Amino acid sequence: MDTIRVIKIGGKLAEDDQKLMAFLNEFQSMKGTKILVHGGGVIASTIGKKLGIKPKMIDGRRVTDRETLDVTTMVYAGLINKKIVAKLQALGQNAIGLTGADLNVVASVKRNPVPINFGWVGDIEQVKTDWLKAFVEQGIVPVLAPLTHDGKGSMLNTNADSIAAYVAAELAMRYRVQLVYFFDYCGVLKDGEVIPRIAFDEFEQLKVEGVVTDGMIPKLELSFHALLKGVEKVFIRGFSDVNDDTKGTVLTL
Amino acid sequence: MDTIRVIKIGGKLAEDDQKLMAFLNEFQSMKGTKILVHGGGVIASTIGKKLGIKPKMIDGRRVTDRETLDVTTMVYAGLINKKIVAKLQALGQNAIGLTGADLNVVASVKRNPVPINFGWVGDIEQVKTDWLKAFVEQGIVPVLAPLTHDGKGSMLNTNADSIAAYVAAELAMRYRVQLVYFFDYCGVLKDGEVIPRIAFDEFEQLKVEGVVTDGMIPKLELSFHALLKGVEKVFIRGFSDVNDDTKGTVLTL
Repeated sequence: MDTIRVIKIGGKLAEDDQKLMAFLNEFQSMKGTKILVHGGGVIASTIGKKLGIKPKMIDGRRVTDRETLDVTTMVYAGLINKKIVAKLQALGQNAIGLTGADLNVVASVKRNPVPINFGWVGDIEQVKTDWLKAFVEQGIVPVLAPLTHDGKGSMLNTNADSIAAYVAAELAMRYRVQLVYFFDYCGVLKDGEVIPRIAFDEFEQLKVEGVVTDGMIPKLELSFHALLKGVEKVFIRGFSDVNDDTKGTVLTL
Repeated sequence: MDTIRVIKIGGKLAEDDQKLMAFLNEFQSMKGTKILVHGGGVIASTIGKKLGIKPKMIDGRRVTDRETLDVTTMVYAGLINKKIVAKLQALGQNAIGLTGADLNVVASVKRNPVPINFGWVGDIEQVKTDWLKAFVEQGIVPVLAPLTHDGKGSMLNTNADSIAAYVAAELAMRYRVQLVYFFDYCGVLKDGEVIPRIAFDEFEQLKVEGVVTDGMIPKLELSFHALLKGVEKVFIRGFSDVNDDTKGTVLTL
């Protein structure tokens, strides 16, 4: 097989059918073997609010109580995941929507409630790639929702960036793998300009300088984790440049 | 392979975690190869109401407008389907949740809006069994939600009894297949007593006598459709008798 690309998109994209279709058209024209991972936080908050569930945040991160877990499971595995799968099918691309519970693809452990109890949130323990391999070898695109399971009967809300990085890392044991994070910016920015390339030894410096902050830090940490595990390249770039590998930021060791 | 059993349960079961676990324990101890199909109408109505969407019914059947389609997709493919899959995994039973859109397992056509416009409701056109076979041959239980797709990018709300019957019929072309409908009654009743066996030629008579009415008529029609397509037996029985083939009603040609 050629290179496998693990491609992560934010859930926000699924809020706008036209934007989603525009992306999926680009995605479909992207050559080679692909796995799609999607997020979904924004829609879950909107629907949770309508259901009378107030989003609880600690340090900007969602606390997942039982009710919130039900909402995220509905929105991520139901609404967003199936919208993407149905639209890929309409483009002639066979696809399968999966959570970590399906085929036991991603098993997690519920995060330690000390020091902060984030509730039903999963930290990834194991990725099983046998079925993912079977699907991609048949030209089928697995579409992964940001949910895993605890092996004890419960789903767990799980960060989509982490799922993408861990799946890429596990597949890298046998295949050439690239990881692509798409988001609303054109790449990792410094003074408003895209940094074209960040090597591992520059990452610490960028943190010290305060160039890389907040949500970008875990994304880059996950990226370098994946690179250290054998992923060939990590791309971070905007939805405007889906099929242009020269755009955005490339991370390497 | 031995006989494949296609087993359908109502969505109501998923409202009560204890009842669901009790059923899944019985299901797990049922020998042989199994495919599970679940419904889900009651929870969708409850959540739809909370979201301010009033259930629209014509002749007791749900009208699926766009908003309702989103709710059913969330509840069926998300909440109920993943609850069942996670609990089966906890019982040591590998499982995969699927809608008709996933792997293009069940493709439908949107129901003709004349004479009654039921909205985004699917009438099954094609069942593809290649991946279902691959899963069951590996001891994996496919868990099918009552949703299909139209091949044009939209999900379609689809009757779970129909999905079970059509999947059973398609598999019967190659395997020995039995179809089991579980519900709250102990079988098809006449004067409060379970009818142990109904043959095809007795069905018309039971309709004329008014023994079989309302929702039971399409269930039996689907059952005989499946039998005519080669399904060996159809069982209709209660949750109290999951593993007792001598209970409930058996349908034969």
